[in-house]
Amino acid sequence: MKLYTLCGADPKQRFSPHAWKVIMSLSHKRLAFEEYPTAFTAIPNVVGSFSPTVPVLDDGGQKVRDSFEIALYLEETYGDRPSLFKGEGGRALSRTIEGYSQWIVQPALMRIIGKDIHDCLAPEDQSYYRESREKRFGMSLEALVENWESELRAFPAKLEPIRHALKFGPFLGGASPLFADYILFGAFQWARVVSPKPILTPGDSVSDWFERCLDLYDGIGRAAAS
Amino acid sequence: MKLYTLCGADPKQRFSPHAWKVIMSLSHKRLAFEEYPTAFTAIPNVVGSFSPTVPVLDDGGQKVRDSFEIALYLEETYGDRPSLFKGEGGRALSRTIEGYSQWIVQPALMRIIGKDIHDCLAPEDQSYYRESREKRFGMSLEALVENWESELRAFPAKLEPIRHALKFGPFLGGASPLFADYILFGAFQWARVVSPKPILTPGDSVSDWFERCLDLYDGIGRAAAS
Repeated sequence: MKLYTLCGADPKQRFSPHAWKVIMSLSHKRLAFEEYPTAFTAIPNVVGSFSPTVPVLDDGGQKVRDSFEIALYLEETYGDRPSLFKGEGGRALSRTIEGYSQWIVQPALMRIIGKDIHDCLAPEDQSYYRESREKRFGMSLEALVENWESELRAFPAKLEPIRHALKFGPFLGGASPLFADYILFGAFQWARVVSPKPILTPGDSVSDWFERCLDLYDGIGRAAAS
Repeated sequence: MKLYTLCGADPKQRFSPHAWKVIMSLSHKRLAFEEYPTAFTAIPNVVGSFSPTVPVLDDGGQKVRDSFEIALYLEETYGDRPSLFKGEGGRALSRTIEGYSQWIVQPALMRIIGKDIHDCLAPEDQSYYRESREKRFGMSLEALVENWESELRAFPAKLEPIRHALKFGPFLGGASPLFADYILFGAFQWARVVSPKPILTPGDSVSDWFERCLDLYDGIGRAAAS
């Protein structure tokens, strides 16, 4: 199994939140895989026209793109391995949690680390990243992160849904993690890998949960260069 | 089965978001129940010292309090009826969605409808409500809702997680609703029952979903006085 992920100028600096969801999911299912960290501008060279973005999973020639689609594929194909959803309800509700990560957590993080991502890329990828993101956000990267300090102060309140769930178990999935945990892990790992900014506060239950996630699967998350 | 819920000066105006979660859950399980709408200050008279708040379910003498606890009780006790969680994953992830409702959606709504709730109560309940809420929020009810118009303008963005999930099915639970749907339905029903303010925008997928929820179980939600 081959997994194409995203990297900065240093191939060990693998920062894509969506790729991390898949790295954790493959590990959860105890599936061996070879990771191919890929720079933004090299994606067409490695996955051709199959997908404009990574992660892309190549499972013996069967290619799958999009982190949630890959999780669904793994759950279906490797149904005898530990479940990523624990039932139909878990599968459906993971979409609301994906929406929360994608539309509340990640946009806030982007206004904190958006320029740090740029700074860890190779020159040709910096140009691509700056142009595509400045178009998407309708402002310069510098303007995007201009108020990062107030954004960071407002950030803990946005994590209350996670904090609430952690009153009832060590993971969002309960006693053990599910894909929903990896969805949000991906967002915080993204920030951790590209930025030295103190995103989570030690002693906060969200920070404790993130540390537990970093320890999973022989510390595969913790081993990422940051 | 008896269910104690919350009402305004008009007993037909049943507005508790948490009680609505249970009304929908009992209906989902096709369980017959008698509802006892109760004013804030009458709660001790009907449930004694068992619980300071409603909903309280009395299932043939077995009393259960707290909406999520009641849902768990129903799922366990009436396991042969339609499931509220569809598996262990759905049960665990419903807590994150409860957190999202309780800490992102409901606080925003409170800053819009907090005074409207007051205005639909009987005089003795108005005193109780004003005192307890002004203590909780550290400000007068009038100050709480002072910027309700800008809060309402900022509200649609807070619903992106729901909007995202609805790209994949008509309910958060997928093809049919789960307890997670009722958690968020409760929040919007709360606003609908107490306030004429236009909380949801017609044409928005969240509004379409809410209308679908109002139609469930012979329109039990739509029948509530507002």
